[in-house]
Amino acid sequence: MKVYGYPLSTCTRKVLTVLAEKKYTAEFIPIDILKGEQKQPSYLSRHPFGVVPVLEDNGFSLYESRAIIRYLDDKLGGTKLTPQGREDKARMDQWISVEQSYFSGPALQMIKQLYFAPAAGGKPDTTIVAEARPRVERALEVADKALTTHDYLAGTFSLADITWMPYVEYLFASKVGDLVTNRKYLSAWWNRVSERPSWREVSRLGTSK
Amino acid sequence: MKVYGYPLSTCTRKVLTVLAEKKYTAEFIPIDILKGEQKQPSYLSRHPFGVVPVLEDNGFSLYESRAIIRYLDDKLGGTKLTPQGREDKARMDQWISVEQSYFSGPALQMIKQLYFAPAAGGKPDTTIVAEARPRVERALEVADKALTTHDYLAGTFSLADITWMPYVEYLFASKVGDLVTNRKYLSAWWNRVSERPSWREVSRLGTSK
Repeated sequence: MKVYGYPLSTCTRKVLTVLAEKKYTAEFIPIDILKGEQKQPSYLSRHPFGVVPVLEDNGFSLYESRAIIRYLDDKLGGTKLTPQGREDKARMDQWISVEQSYFSGPALQMIKQLYFAPAAGGKPDTTIVAEARPRVERALEVADKALTTHDYLAGTFSLADITWMPYVEYLFASKVGDLVTNRKYLSAWWNRVSERPSWREVSRLGTSK
Repeated sequence: MKVYGYPLSTCTRKVLTVLAEKKYTAEFIPIDILKGEQKQPSYLSRHPFGVVPVLEDNGFSLYESRAIIRYLDDKLGGTKLTPQGREDKARMDQWISVEQSYFSGPALQMIKQLYFAPAAGGKPDTTIVAEARPRVERALEVADKALTTHDYLAGTFSLADITWMPYVEYLFASKVGDLVTNRKYLSAWWNRVSERPSWREVSRLGTSK
């Protein structure tokens, strides 16, 4: 299998974390998004929307991280990352969709302003941060509440946790980790998931902290 | 089963279409989003982000339409809406994610300006339409290309088609149906899917045309 991606990309990290959980080594083909390689025709033939990552598996080509991680979990051995029970599986699907609908959009707006803008020598746009912050807080508050009765978003550790983790790490890198640590159950969840060997392996790929 | 929703809501329609495919009648509890009922505490206890729909099944409560339709397809009999093959299943997941990531956001921006604003006596904001339109066109172009080799997005009729259909119908209602009919394979797909008895039943629930 080949993964086309960028080690600092949140969506690439979801795929790499699943591969690490599965103890499966795919060939990693770096696409430098800072140089715009994801908008080159050769890459656009793999991903028509020009973002990372893409998976290629013996001629089968797939994009969208949330589809790729489901495919990998179905195909590869190792830790099972989809709950067996119908209701827990549905909760996993719900939390993956919550990440996509309510969390990662505003979280990335904060992260771009508070982490990537200063890293490139610029200044954060405080208007964008002020607009995004309450939406991030709401998503984290809802997750915190769900985690009062479960150790993981879908009961057991699953793809749902993996879809949230890259954004949470970048919130810490953006120096707004208090949004997480101020919430008791969410904070305990972060300690649990970020200590997993898979996540430590992926975190080492790039310095985001 | 109970569905809390609004007949004109695109996400409610995804759930109702799956129920119609399954020939299963759930109790429908209308939430009038024009009156803000989705932001009332009684409803927020069911959906913490205050949008429709929500499914309740014998004490199990689930939100996010894309999670609900997967749950219904897994639980109920009738037409199977998830491909059996691993690669076609992955394509279904990809197209559901493409709808969520690239299509429905800008499509709804156009629909709000071109359909709902005039319906409420207002005028469309042409700047918003001009910004959204090329993104909608790109998503439709990518779908059209995929449909050159398949009758449906994931090979056979699936949840993926159902997630796209409500937005496509509203593009017609917004008088930009040429975005669809100008694309040969997409147009043929729309003729196929919109003629299904399930979709006709759901279309009748509200006048969007």
